[in-house]
Amino acid sequence: MNYQEADGQYIWHPFTHLKFQTKNIVITKAKGLYLYTEDGRQIMDAVGSWWVNVHGHSHPYIAKQIKEQLNVMEHCIFSGFTHPPAIELAKHISEIVPVKEPKVFYSDNGSTSVEVAIKMALQYFYNQNQPYKNKIIAFKNAYHGDTFGGMSVAERNVFNNPFRKNLFPTYFLDVPKEENFSKVKRQLLRYVDKGNVAAFIFEPLVQGAAGMIMYNEKYLDELIFICQQNNILTIADEVFTGFGKTGKLFACDYLKNKPDIICLSKGLTGGFLPLGVTVVNKKIYDVFVDEDKTKTFYHGHSFTANPLMCRAAIANIELIRKNEFISTIKKIEMMHKEFADIVRHHILVKDVRYKGIILAVEIKTKDRTHYLNRLSTIIEKYFLERDILLRPLGNVLYVVPPVCIKKQEMKKIYSTILSFLNDLSTNNFS
Amino acid sequence: MNYQEADGQYIWHPFTHLKFQTKNIVITKAKGLYLYTEDGRQIMDAVGSWWVNVHGHSHPYIAKQIKEQLNVMEHCIFSGFTHPPAIELAKHISEIVPVKEPKVFYSDNGSTSVEVAIKMALQYFYNQNQPYKNKIIAFKNAYHGDTFGGMSVAERNVFNNPFRKNLFPTYFLDVPKEENFSKVKRQLLRYVDKGNVAAFIFEPLVQGAAGMIMYNEKYLDELIFICQQNNILTIADEVFTGFGKTGKLFACDYLKNKPDIICLSKGLTGGFLPLGVTVVNKKIYDVFVDEDKTKTFYHGHSFTANPLMCRAAIANIELIRKNEFISTIKKIEMMHKEFADIVRHHILVKDVRYKGIILAVEIKTKDRTHYLNRLSTIIEKYFLERDILLRPLGNVLYVVPPVCIKKQEMKKIYSTILSFLNDLSTNNFS
Repeated sequence: MNYQEADGQYIWHPFTHLKFQTKNIVITKAKGLYLYTEDGRQIMDAVGSWWVNVHGHSHPYIAKQIKEQLNVMEHCIFSGFTHPPAIELAKHISEIVPVKEPKVFYSDNGSTSVEVAIKMALQYFYNQNQPYKNKIIAFKNAYHGDTFGGMSVAERNVFNNPFRKNLFPTYFLDVPKEENFSKVKRQLLRYVDKGNVAAFIFEPLVQGAAGMIMYNEKYLDELIFICQQNNILTIADEVFTGFGKTGKLFACDYLKNKPDIICLSKGLTGGFLPLGVTVVNKKIYDVFVDEDKTKTFYHGHSFTANPLMCRAAIANIELIRKNEFISTIKKIEMMHKEFADIVRHHILVKDVRYKGIILAVEIKTKDRTHYLNRLSTIIEKYFLERDILLRPLGNVLYVVPPVCIKKQEMKKIYSTILSFLNDLSTNNFS
Repeated sequence: MNYQEADGQYIWHPFTHLKFQTKNIVITKAKGLYLYTEDGRQIMDAVGSWWVNVHGHSHPYIAKQIKEQLNVMEHCIFSGFTHPPAIELAKHISEIVPVKEPKVFYSDNGSTSVEVAIKMALQYFYNQNQPYKNKIIAFKNAYHGDTFGGMSVAERNVFNNPFRKNLFPTYFLDVPKEENFSKVKRQLLRYVDKGNVAAFIFEPLVQGAAGMIMYNEKYLDELIFICQQNNILTIADEVFTGFGKTGKLFACDYLKNKPDIICLSKGLTGGFLPLGVTVVNKKIYDVFVDEDKTKTFYHGHSFTANPLMCRAAIANIELIRKNEFISTIKKIEMMHKEFADIVRHHILVKDVRYKGIILAVEIKTKDRTHYLNRLSTIIEKYFLERDILLRPLGNVLYVVPPVCIKKQEMKKIYSTILSFLNDLSTNNFS
């Protein structure tokens, strides 16, 4: 079989502009920081394959744990039944996640972990005879997944425009900054006054898909506090930020005021398999413990708490809980800082942001900063020709490497960013 | 760790009435037809763990294929890149699925495969400047998953009542029978006349969660034909019915008129791992091939086309394409028929239905036939005490065993159903 041709014949790829789809690169092996092609190329995966890969590809310890689970039990229905991998994982999560008296609800990916969170928040009030509390507050630019619930609480944009009529309405807050924070608080209080808000959902500290937009935890702390004072649940979508991305295990670890619900996926299995969890505090759980059967949370996926996925996640968290994990990220963050202090003076750089393992360089362009900015194609091609996989968000170039990346490899990325900016400033791509 | 206690402390189980949750049974091993408990019980899994298990638990061939993939590549971003497991699987699916010139779009589970189908149908018209075509037609009793899109095209019922205000409106058709079919056609034509319908979604031949409601393919053929004549896309949700459940590889294999889109999951990996695919015909794909970037289908999951899931699905389909697979199901269907002819005369039996591997017995009860019918708890307990896992839909008792089930094992289930009905008729549970 000619893989590349067969791929074009049979497959519709995600987020892909089909008209100008070049042939997709066939990857036959993945190990550590690298993806290996059929014809011998070795490509540095500097974005952790869409932010999922934590330790490096095909980590032997996680692979081993899945293999052992395959010898014992592949899957089992999770209603009325339970199993050691689900229980051990729930215990691990409960020990590290910043939610009080947590209960773990399993699903299959980031989108579904958000759908579950929204549904729990709505039913929390429904079960207490407050069905009118059915609105959600979200940040502008928000991205919370591609299913209808996730799209509904996201900024209306190119991602969801064709479905606009089929999304439920959401209230939007500006992303807080020093200069607008009193306005943001007024926006929030205006929504609170309506009396129909169930929950406030946010990507804590970093809005990923929006272009790695970062904001200070002190503002979020204050917004959460206002919600807590006004019987509005808070949902932290840590699908991207979880598992060390921001330099702590969870972005919410930077907060004084903890959310009621945290959504996790992506890094949860170390990047091996999809798995979603929605962690909620006891206050919410207790509202679903009722004699009335109609107050049950009627949500479930066939593969809820799949043992292979759970086993991968346990192995991942075991690796993450070792001391060197966060200290490695802190070392990389220091390198990001040093590089940021240099690159921010480049004539073509509009802004540089970094937090934990994440580094983002926003490039000046004639078009506005936007996902569809034509610069993304130019950046991607430039780096790929140099065997580095980036996936810019429009004119925002970013890296989210796995922790196995070495100093020399990080330096190669930095120097390629600089040479790209220089080539761009001398109009090499016009 | 005491697993059962830890389970109760940390985990919120799906579809579980928490108030009267008895301790969940801890399963430590699964093999063939059986689940094995910590304390040595051997429970017959007669519902394929929520209809996912096709060949029997922990099938060695599928396990082996996943292990080999674990040695090579666990995962890789699927935009701009591709890999042999995704390509081989797409080819396999294309060869067996009843869709013309198929394109395969990957996601993570049944719910997301439906979300993708609905979004493709809506954007198909949006891309052709017909954004007003944004309504979906579905059957009454329909179940299409628990995410907001899936819930929106489902009957409004106990599953989604708390979220009713946040679902988009859908048109509903009665399920066709001999006596109501001319009325159903009139309903459909009334919706067609509105001019705003994008698609008609249905579970072909068997509505699973509704209580294994079955209907004849000739009616569906005619409804699809009407849609085809009126520029309405048809979506077959084969998440449950796919992979042999109805006695052919797909329920749509019984149809003369093929749908534009088919959603698959559950049996797709043989019950090992979650994976969803949405298969569409070229007519739809072509509408997304456009110079205008905003006509792109901006949907994707981080683990889209995960190599481990794809490898499991390839192994599963290899097993399914062997001749004995369908003939085994046909043999079991014959046994179902013989048993149905006996049990339908029982005084407590309201209806018996079977198709392929599926057998459903609807039991007479004072309450109406309904998911919340209290009989479900009684049935489940009765069978579990006899080491058979059933999961009745209210007063509808059903089995969907894997094909590895032996004649003697099938007979044990039948005789237990009969003894249950007898005990029930002598009021043993009042």
